[in-house]
Amino acid sequence: MDKRLFTHPLPLKSVRITDGFWGNYQRKVLNEVIPYQWEALNDRVPGADRSGCIRNFEIAAGRAAGEHIGWVFQDSDLAKWLEAAAYALVLRPDPDLERRMDETIELICEAQQPDGYLDTYYIITGLDKRFTNLQDHHELYCFGHMTEAAVAYYYATGKDALLQAMIRYADCIDRCIGPEPGKLRGYPGHEEAELALIRLYGITHDEKHLRLAKYFIDERGQSPLYFEEEGRRNGNRFYWRDTHYRYHYYQAGMPVRAQRNADGHAVRAMYLLCGVADIARVTGDESLLDTAEALWKSVARRQMYITGAIGSSHVGEAFTFDYDLPNDTVYGETCAAIGLVFFARRMLELRPRAEYADVMERALYNGVISGMSLDGKRFFYVNPLEVVPEACEKDEGKRHVKPERQKWFGCACCPPNIARLLGSVSQYMLTAREGAIYVHLYIGAELDASLNGQPLSLRLNSGFPWQGRAELTVVSGSASGRIALRVPGWCRYYTLRVNGRPADAPTEDGYLLLDRDWQPGDAVTLDFDMPVTRMAADPRVREDTGKVAVTRGPVVYCLEEKDNGGSLHLLRLPRDAAFEIHDEPELLDGVTVLTAKGLRRSAAWAAEGLYAPAEACEEAAQTLTFIPYYAWANRGVGEMCVWVREA
Amino acid sequence: MDKRLFTHPLPLKSVRITDGFWGNYQRKVLNEVIPYQWEALNDRVPGADRSGCIRNFEIAAGRAAGEHIGWVFQDSDLAKWLEAAAYALVLRPDPDLERRMDETIELICEAQQPDGYLDTYYIITGLDKRFTNLQDHHELYCFGHMTEAAVAYYYATGKDALLQAMIRYADCIDRCIGPEPGKLRGYPGHEEAELALIRLYGITHDEKHLRLAKYFIDERGQSPLYFEEEGRRNGNRFYWRDTHYRYHYYQAGMPVRAQRNADGHAVRAMYLLCGVADIARVTGDESLLDTAEALWKSVARRQMYITGAIGSSHVGEAFTFDYDLPNDTVYGETCAAIGLVFFARRMLELRPRAEYADVMERALYNGVISGMSLDGKRFFYVNPLEVVPEACEKDEGKRHVKPERQKWFGCACCPPNIARLLGSVSQYMLTAREGAIYVHLYIGAELDASLNGQPLSLRLNSGFPWQGRAELTVVSGSASGRIALRVPGWCRYYTLRVNGRPADAPTEDGYLLLDRDWQPGDAVTLDFDMPVTRMAADPRVREDTGKVAVTRGPVVYCLEEKDNGGSLHLLRLPRDAAFEIHDEPELLDGVTVLTAKGLRRSAAWAAEGLYAPAEACEEAAQTLTFIPYYAWANRGVGEMCVWVREA
Repeated sequence: MDKRLFTHPLPLKSVRITDGFWGNYQRKVLNEVIPYQWEALNDRVPGADRSGCIRNFEIAAGRAAGEHIGWVFQDSDLAKWLEAAAYALVLRPDPDLERRMDETIELICEAQQPDGYLDTYYIITGLDKRFTNLQDHHELYCFGHMTEAAVAYYYATGKDALLQAMIRYADCIDRCIGPEPGKLRGYPGHEEAELALIRLYGITHDEKHLRLAKYFIDERGQSPLYFEEEGRRNGNRFYWRDTHYRYHYYQAGMPVRAQRNADGHAVRAMYLLCGVADIARVTGDESLLDTAEALWKSVARRQMYITGAIGSSHVGEAFTFDYDLPNDTVYGETCAAIGLVFFARRMLELRPRAEYADVMERALYNGVISGMSLDGKRFFYVNPLEVVPEACEKDEGKRHVKPERQKWFGCACCPPNIARLLGSVSQYMLTAREGAIYVHLYIGAELDASLNGQPLSLRLNSGFPWQGRAELTVVSGSASGRIALRVPGWCRYYTLRVNGRPADAPTEDGYLLLDRDWQPGDAVTLDFDMPVTRMAADPRVREDTGKVAVTRGPVVYCLEEKDNGGSLHLLRLPRDAAFEIHDEPELLDGVTVLTAKGLRRSAAWAAEGLYAPAEACEEAAQTLTFIPYYAWANRGVGEMCVWVREA
Repeated sequence: MDKRLFTHPLPLKSVRITDGFWGNYQRKVLNEVIPYQWEALNDRVPGADRSGCIRNFEIAAGRAAGEHIGWVFQDSDLAKWLEAAAYALVLRPDPDLERRMDETIELICEAQQPDGYLDTYYIITGLDKRFTNLQDHHELYCFGHMTEAAVAYYYATGKDALLQAMIRYADCIDRCIGPEPGKLRGYPGHEEAELALIRLYGITHDEKHLRLAKYFIDERGQSPLYFEEEGRRNGNRFYWRDTHYRYHYYQAGMPVRAQRNADGHAVRAMYLLCGVADIARVTGDESLLDTAEALWKSVARRQMYITGAIGSSHVGEAFTFDYDLPNDTVYGETCAAIGLVFFARRMLELRPRAEYADVMERALYNGVISGMSLDGKRFFYVNPLEVVPEACEKDEGKRHVKPERQKWFGCACCPPNIARLLGSVSQYMLTAREGAIYVHLYIGAELDASLNGQPLSLRLNSGFPWQGRAELTVVSGSASGRIALRVPGWCRYYTLRVNGRPADAPTEDGYLLLDRDWQPGDAVTLDFDMPVTRMAADPRVREDTGKVAVTRGPVVYCLEEKDNGGSLHLLRLPRDAAFEIHDEPELLDGVTVLTAKGLRRSAAWAAEGLYAPAEACEEAAQTLTFIPYYAWANRGVGEMCVWVREA
């Protein structure tokens, strides 16, 4: 493992997104999501579940009296909002927002205890109980999110009040938890602190932060199991006793380095793997890299939906087993798809490989943004690939699936998580090292980069996801080195032009390698062929047998009742059906719609009962209209499906 | 409604089963199930869940000290065993068994309280709480089952100790519960007392028993809702608050006569409908008949699996909604299919219609007996139509589905329920009235019947379910009147012979009507064509789209991994595949196996990831081997499916 080959995202302020598609999403974050979620955190959204988040901090700070409201991890909602808002300040300076954030940070610091402890649940309900239920009570998870917020705010504004507070909290944790005698030999029941400590370490370079993160990874799942001891000592409940997961739910069923299959709670798994990859990067630890790669394969090659959704079971919000990907009972939590993007970016930092970027792109354009309505005001927790609204209401096994996005959740992890990812999408589009820039996602942007120490201003124009053209131009600066451009996995044919002339370039791990003396005005043009593609699933995926999913470029399509009528299971897409491509700038914020000559099986049924001798089924021609999956459920309640019968 | 047209089963002792198929099952009940379950009730089965059933009666009778063991409805396991054992005494006199039953009945009577109350849960835990949780605590359900046992034992032996005890208990209930001032205006949370009271009324002709049963039906679901009041008064929990079912779980979501859709707990629904049909029969109440007919249609025409399984949701063991019949997450409780048989027989008593008998036959030959292993020692609670063993272990949404039958259950309602049904299968094969005998099921038997007051001994020989020939012979006696013979719904062609000569007869509601002066030696021969049939489901059943189920006569077939290899989802049965029929007397206690030239889709997958552009799928010829569904899971653990892809 040659650490010199590792890459890193550009600083936040060095990338200005100009992209039509993602710029639109960022505007939603700025104009809708962040103000809306601020209202939600302050319990001012009529009809939405009460958050209590700010209120808890006011009580903890002694500004108000009352009882703790919401979940034990309620603080994390504010943390994720702060992180998202920090990215927003970079996207568009906003003194009002910044002032509100400063005031909030002041409130947070006021709630902090003299020894650095900072978690409103225990500050309000009794500090004597703190760190007595690391398994389920999320203190270290909240610490992690608030640390990520502190880091983001520091990078956005240079202000370090929250950063210093979190350093003090890290010290407090380090005094209480660890392998040394007299400390609790525990670790987080919900991962997040690990990756946050590495982000903190990126600023502080304090070995203590790295050591603590590494300890959390290494201690996890060791025998005797801390959570068992903790449970016995403190009488904690063990919710997962009678399930298949047991301690795998917490990613503590075995030592991390011994894991080869992703199991248990999907978000926990993703956050853990981010920490694993981060520490592998910082320390060069080969065994952690092996673990990260093995678990990547377990997730991306054996347990991922075509939308990038992961975690197929509602119970435990968890993985089940290889190739088990039911479309209707799926969980596919928005946060898990977001976590997969986080993990993919970290794998790209370790080694630019198109597989990581392909999955990152798949999740971003599909299973992540499906979590938010086009108006930025409603959210899905669960992202199904097949929905029959009546089943969501009347079949208890599908009641976790909602046919409409919700305003806010009692457990509101997903909405601010989307906001912070969309606000920082620049951190996912490219990574760089000394002599190379790797473009992973074709997102229009202006970039202040450098190659071998020479500054280089670049402009990336992109028609993604609707057109396959992307153009990279050197705006200013001269530098010698490599610009590597990803060839998306969905693309079979492309043309490369350099300064208008057809060019050829070697590829490595799915990236075109352009090694060159770059001069102002240099332009690289890529035309990726983006045909409509009928995708099949690995035959081991039982639920997709005999079906296809329609994709074009990075976008997965679906059928909605709105366009195709109900009883979508009666529709069929014959193997030879040709597609038409329609740009619909007025529809669903502007999408490309696909149509094909399909068939609808007759619903006529002469028999009195449910079963009768099979007869040749009659089918009538029907135009099938496919819309992008991410945009479903924005035009009222109805059926939806991604996988369509082929025969 | 002409009550003179109602029919009734023959007395237990008037039918001697000689049938190969059902005789074999009855021998299992006699030789295995009843002795085995007696051991289970006495906690003497190693490795099985503890029953505590007899022990509870010993404690309640003051013969032993200790705490109540098991569920609040534990008594009903003994009741069902007693009922089954009573039928066993009729099938084969057994002085040892009868002595053991008498001793047990003595124990039960000893536990009875001076005022007639008889429920070990409250006798042991505190009588002051009795009747405080009619919603969930099953006292009236246990009363009902013990009453059925008392009736059966009375008919079997003429002994009335238990019958008198239950009459006293009925008096006690009548003093405590009812519409009169000072009584609790409640009704059973789990139906069963209704039908049992009507069975009791059949002996006592005491209007009090009919009145109480009728009250339970009429009060149920009335507003204000008794269970709400009871819950408020006694602080009872309401488990179904946050579900779709709510009070429909108990069949109390609305007044019974207003119901038009079967909803909520499936067994409760079936037992309720038995009571509804019984009271309609006894009282001639048209509105109850309408309700029974409407709910029959709701179940049999819109919510029933092809195996006769009902109740598609694990949560609440309940119905979901019309045409929602998932094969892999199904519940399909054995007791619910048994309840459907009970209900069907009662509908046949009201009006002989082939639809009722078709469903009864479907459930009996498939979804009922699938609940028991061929050795009579292990039982399914859940009867799925598609099983992947790994999913039963690792997908929490399918963990209720077991790939192997279990020895005994903590909640052991199903095993003794199968035993009592199989032991009394004679009560389902035919019903009669003054001038007519209706043969519903072709089960070999010797019958002491009568027509218009003239005794008539009949013999029925049958090759069912493997051959379609049935022969009815007059052994002795002469009588004039109608013998009506059902033409099964699965049969398109049949030949009728009377005394060896081709004959013709009118049909009504699916029955051949033979009106004749019957003389000794008269023989009616029916040859029902019994081809292998590929069945389709109503197109509204999403889960069966593009698939067929293979049936022959009354038997539904399935594919098992044992015969066909794993990954059954890759198999396909082309539309033109011809079947071969193989009689296998040594296999699975003797079955007819079907084979067809099918195809197996290649599991080869060149792509690294889970999804790739669809290509023409390669299929290789494979002989598909179908075994009767009821016999699955008797040769080790493996995949199974009923519905097979056709295209």
